[in-house]
Amino acid sequence: MNPTKVVITGGAGFLGRRLARTLLERGTLADAAGRQQPIERITLVDVVAPSGFDDPRIDTVVGDIADAALLARAVDASTTSIFHLAAIVSGMAEADFELGMRVNVDASRTLLDLCRAGGRMPRFVFASSVAVYGGELPAVVGDNLAVVPQTSYGTEKAIVELLVNDYSRRGFVDGRVLRLPTICVRPGRPNAAASSFASGIVREPLNGEAANCPVEAATRLWLLSPANAIACLIALHDADAAALGANRIVNGPGLSVSVSEMIAALERIAGTDVVARITYDRDPRIARLVDTWPGELAATRADALGLPRDDSFDAILRSYIAEEIEPSPRS
Amino acid sequence: MNPTKVVITGGAGFLGRRLARTLLERGTLADAAGRQQPIERITLVDVVAPSGFDDPRIDTVVGDIADAALLARAVDASTTSIFHLAAIVSGMAEADFELGMRVNVDASRTLLDLCRAGGRMPRFVFASSVAVYGGELPAVVGDNLAVVPQTSYGTEKAIVELLVNDYSRRGFVDGRVLRLPTICVRPGRPNAAASSFASGIVREPLNGEAANCPVEAATRLWLLSPANAIACLIALHDADAAALGANRIVNGPGLSVSVSEMIAALERIAGTDVVARITYDRDPRIARLVDTWPGELAATRADALGLPRDDSFDAILRSYIAEEIEPSPRS
Repeated sequence: MNPTKVVITGGAGFLGRRLARTLLERGTLADAAGRQQPIERITLVDVVAPSGFDDPRIDTVVGDIADAALLARAVDASTTSIFHLAAIVSGMAEADFELGMRVNVDASRTLLDLCRAGGRMPRFVFASSVAVYGGELPAVVGDNLAVVPQTSYGTEKAIVELLVNDYSRRGFVDGRVLRLPTICVRPGRPNAAASSFASGIVREPLNGEAANCPVEAATRLWLLSPANAIACLIALHDADAAALGANRIVNGPGLSVSVSEMIAALERIAGTDVVARITYDRDPRIARLVDTWPGELAATRADALGLPRDDSFDAILRSYIAEEIEPSPRS
Repeated sequence: MNPTKVVITGGAGFLGRRLARTLLERGTLADAAGRQQPIERITLVDVVAPSGFDDPRIDTVVGDIADAALLARAVDASTTSIFHLAAIVSGMAEADFELGMRVNVDASRTLLDLCRAGGRMPRFVFASSVAVYGGELPAVVGDNLAVVPQTSYGTEKAIVELLVNDYSRRGFVDGRVLRLPTICVRPGRPNAAASSFASGIVREPLNGEAANCPVEAATRLWLLSPANAIACLIALHDADAAALGANRIVNGPGLSVSVSEMIAALERIAGTDVVARITYDRDPRIARLVDTWPGELAATRADALGLPRDDSFDAILRSYIAEEIEPSPRS
């Protein structure tokens, strides 16, 4: 038996905590040879301490991820799996160029170099983003389209994708890159991601609050539910390296939904009073970023690898309401 | 009048010296507004002092390009044009991973950050390579194909391409990226580039020396003559930014020629005795690298921008013989 030792960067964030909870419940992950092994330890790395955990397998390392000494406390030669989720979000990376480069590029490279120094080729799952795409896009983006990011965030993600591929080719890590769709519905509060509104226009009205839609109603988004985002990250971690081959980058499976279709679904499920809380003041700064992202992807590699898909936006909404509105929220 | 102040990194190398000579003869380059202006100064940056220059417009900065203080001596707010040619070549970057990252990525970023600090948005021409392509390639590679480099050199070039695009988008530089084909025929001696043989199998036999072909004779190469490589770099420098748009990356125009076609041309032009000096011992290390590169590209953007093309490999050979064999070699 080779118990797995897992590191999750961004471990206090929404996806990081949810991933940790799912892994604790699941209890196992694939080892280097692809065999499911018990999870011995999950180290959560973030700028703040993650809340809501009471499990002896959870360990925390709190501080600036761009600090190499901090990362070295979390990752060593015994680390078998890394989920690298920590990032400066798109809106903030656009506003503070140096911060974005430092966290999104330099910290990622430090993390990869710790794996290289460890010499044990851990499975390394990197959460990239469909924001790597930009420029003139076809209606449906295929897996082999060149990336021309139109944000610094997308550029930084694309750079780390290249590093993960090369570090994998050289045997420093066993890398896997998931280009995440826009996650919807995120619980909690708005953040500085340009895509924050995609959850806000659902979440805030359901909570009895106003929300603004800053983009055109016809804007198409490529969406993935939180539950399936986590399921995709774990499935990609456990996928056979041979099925990935030389290119470790996978476009995340999603649903192509327009903002007006999202609002129509919300009205069907939650009623007219709820959607009446949405205002429509276009924000050119946000609209410009969002308009550079693809509204639909083919995601043929994701399907071939068996990554799960959501059935419909109605199903996404119903899951959100069941998980976050009807029970008392966790953490 | 706004005289241009030019910096050429790798200025002591074959392409760098030839570019400098061509610019001195030409005497002008486009300024920020696209108007041809006299060249006041050309600063050549390299690890060794460039030989063969006797022109008051030439300035030299000698040292390690990965040293930020050295680069800061070459580039300041008065710099109007940069040709960034310096690189660790493919074979060496594969053998020494840290050296390749330090020079090919970190030094490039330092150079871009000096432009950002200068605040004057110089035209920035980056010599990338078709080695950014790799993996399963179609017979003819189009301008919009995703890059999946299979060498660290290609990875490093692809990372800097992304940086040049983002630094251009943010207004830090007016960037232009030329993905250079394999340059053939290079004069001088073999180097550690995996593509070095492409010139060696022509140059050494013409000099009465033996040369080995380390790849299959059917291997197709995407070739560009030295004269047209320089002409393409200058044409791309002078191109209208509006014609480039958000994507500053241009696949270099070339000729798709198989190794056996190259040798047949050499036999036609130089005779059977010359080609008899070629041996055919396959080198798996070189063949593996070369086989990941595209043998033919569509290069539609290069054509639209009017970048020059070579007519035939026979014409390339005749130019090489006229320039390098028949006169006494320069420098």
